[in-house]
Amino acid sequence: MLAEYRNQQIYHNHITTIPFGAFDFVLYYAEQMSQIIPVFEHQHDLYEIFYGIEGEANVVCGQDSLPLYENSMVLLGKNHLHRLRYMPEKPAVYFTMIFDIIPKSGNSSIDAELEYREIAKALDKADTNKYIYLPRAVSQQALLADIHKQIQDRKIGWASQIGILYYLFVLNLLRQTTSVVSDVKTPLGYKNIALEASKYIHSNYADELTIDMVAQQLNVTPRHVNRLFQEMFGRSFAHTVSVIRMEYAKKYLRTTNDSLERIAMHVGLPSGKVLIRLFHEQEGMSPGDYRAKFH
Amino acid sequence: MLAEYRNQQIYHNHITTIPFGAFDFVLYYAEQMSQIIPVFEHQHDLYEIFYGIEGEANVVCGQDSLPLYENSMVLLGKNHLHRLRYMPEKPAVYFTMIFDIIPKSGNSSIDAELEYREIAKALDKADTNKYIYLPRAVSQQALLADIHKQIQDRKIGWASQIGILYYLFVLNLLRQTTSVVSDVKTPLGYKNIALEASKYIHSNYADELTIDMVAQQLNVTPRHVNRLFQEMFGRSFAHTVSVIRMEYAKKYLRTTNDSLERIAMHVGLPSGKVLIRLFHEQEGMSPGDYRAKFH
Repeated sequence: MLAEYRNQQIYHNHITTIPFGAFDFVLYYAEQMSQIIPVFEHQHDLYEIFYGIEGEANVVCGQDSLPLYENSMVLLGKNHLHRLRYMPEKPAVYFTMIFDIIPKSGNSSIDAELEYREIAKALDKADTNKYIYLPRAVSQQALLADIHKQIQDRKIGWASQIGILYYLFVLNLLRQTTSVVSDVKTPLGYKNIALEASKYIHSNYADELTIDMVAQQLNVTPRHVNRLFQEMFGRSFAHTVSVIRMEYAKKYLRTTNDSLERIAMHVGLPSGKVLIRLFHEQEGMSPGDYRAKFH
Repeated sequence: MLAEYRNQQIYHNHITTIPFGAFDFVLYYAEQMSQIIPVFEHQHDLYEIFYGIEGEANVVCGQDSLPLYENSMVLLGKNHLHRLRYMPEKPAVYFTMIFDIIPKSGNSSIDAELEYREIAKALDKADTNKYIYLPRAVSQQALLADIHKQIQDRKIGWASQIGILYYLFVLNLLRQTTSVVSDVKTPLGYKNIALEASKYIHSNYADELTIDMVAQQLNVTPRHVNRLFQEMFGRSFAHTVSVIRMEYAKKYLRTTNDSLERIAMHVGLPSGKVLIRLFHEQEGMSPGDYRAKFH
C-alpha cells in the first residue's frame, strides 16, 4: 500500500479550518513533493513541516542544513527563512504542510484552554529555536497512506475527514518533540448528568430515591435532571426510576422464590402492594402471572 | 495490544462536540461494556451504536433480536425502544456509543452542506428501518485500542483527539452501510489563492507577469492577491515574482554559459541590464561574480 501511495500525489490547496474548544487548527497547504520541484528561500508567519518519505532531501534553515531521510521531520517556526537544497539528481519524496494554531477569543472551558496552551507551548520551541528537527520520527507513513486513500475513495465524510487526519499528523509528530504529559484530566465537554444520574439510580435502586436527592448529589437543579433525562432516555426521572425498579423486580421474580413483600424491599418500594400496582401499569400483568411464565 | 485493551474500560461520560462545516458531531456517551451489566429497554432521540468486541451479546430492538459477535454492529435509529438481552452467563464484551449529528443554522459552503446531507442520508436509513445491522463489519478494534491508548498516555491534545477518534469510528461504520460515493469534489475550505498564484508564477516566470494578470486569472482583486502573498510568503507579489526570477537566473548562471541577455529573456526580464540591477539588489553581487563562483 505504501509503495502505491508514494507514486501518487497528495495536494491540498484549500485553507481548511478544524475548530476545537479553545483554538482553530488551520491547514493552509499540504503536498507530497519530489526532488525535481525547486523550493526557493521564503518565510511566512505560519508553521511548516517537512517530512521525509523516501530518498534524501535537505532542508536549509538559516545557516543550518537538515538532511531529510525516511521519517525525518523538520518543524519550522514562524518567520524563519528556509528553502530546500536543490538536488534534482538525488531521488527524494517528501511531504510538506503549512498550518497554524489560532487561539479562540470566546470563552472556552478551563480544560480546553489548558489543552491549547500545551499545544502552543510545544510549538513555541520551534519559534524560539527556529526549528525542531527529528532525524528519525515514529513513522507517519500509514497515516499519509490513509489520507491518500480517503482522497481516492471519496466516501461520505471524506472532505472534512482529511482535515482531521492532517491534524492528527501534526499532533503525532509534535508529541515526539516533548515528553510533557497533558494536565488535562478529563475528555473535553460537559459532564453527562443524565448518565451519571442513571448510574446512581442503578447503584441505589434498593433505597428510597427522589429526584431531589439525585440533583443534590450532582449539584444541579431537579428540573435540569428531568430535562436531561427526557433528552437522554426519552422519559422523566420518576418513570426511569420506576422502569429500572420493575426490571430488577422481574429479575427477582424469574430467579428467586422470594415473596412480593421481600422483592418490593429489594427494589426500594414501600410494599408489595405498590409493586403490584406499578407492575400492572408497566407490564400489563400481575407479578404472579409474570413469575408463572418462568417457573 | 488488543487483548490488553479488552480488559480495560473505555468510559466517556462527557458530552463532547466536534464542529464541522455544516454540522456538529455530538458524542453523548461511550463505554466498553460486558455481559454482567444489564441494559434495560429504553429509547432516546439520539443515535446509538452497539459494536461487538468478543463473545456474544444480543441487541433487542422491537420484535427483532440481533446477535452481536466480534465486529458485528447495530446502529439504532432515533426513538426506537431497544435493550440488551440479559445473558450474564455468556461472556461478551461490546462497545456502545450514543451520538447525534446536528445541522448548523449558519451559512456554510455548498460542499459542507452537501457533506452533511450525505451523512444525514446514511443515518436516515437507521431511522426509517429502526436500525442498520452489519453482522460482520470491517474491524474497528485497532481504532478502539488507539482510543484506549490515548486515554492511558494522556499526551498533549489527547482530550480533543479522542472526540475525533469516536467520530472516525462512526464514520468508518456508517460508510459500510452505504455504497454511495461522495459528490463533494474538493476538500472543504477556501481555495488557497496565494498558493495557486505562486504555482502560476512558477509556470510562467519566463513571460511578462503582472499582478493584474494573475488576479484576473484567479478571479480576485490584485489587492487581495497581495494581501494573501504577504500572509503566505511574507512578501509582496512583485517581490515574490522577482525572487523567483532571480532563483531561476541563478540556476542558468550555474548550469549554462548563456549570455546575460539570453538569461534575462529566459526568466521574463526585458534586458540584461534589468537582470544585473535586480541581481545586485537581491544577492549583493553581480551575476558575473555569482557565476564565477561555480565555474
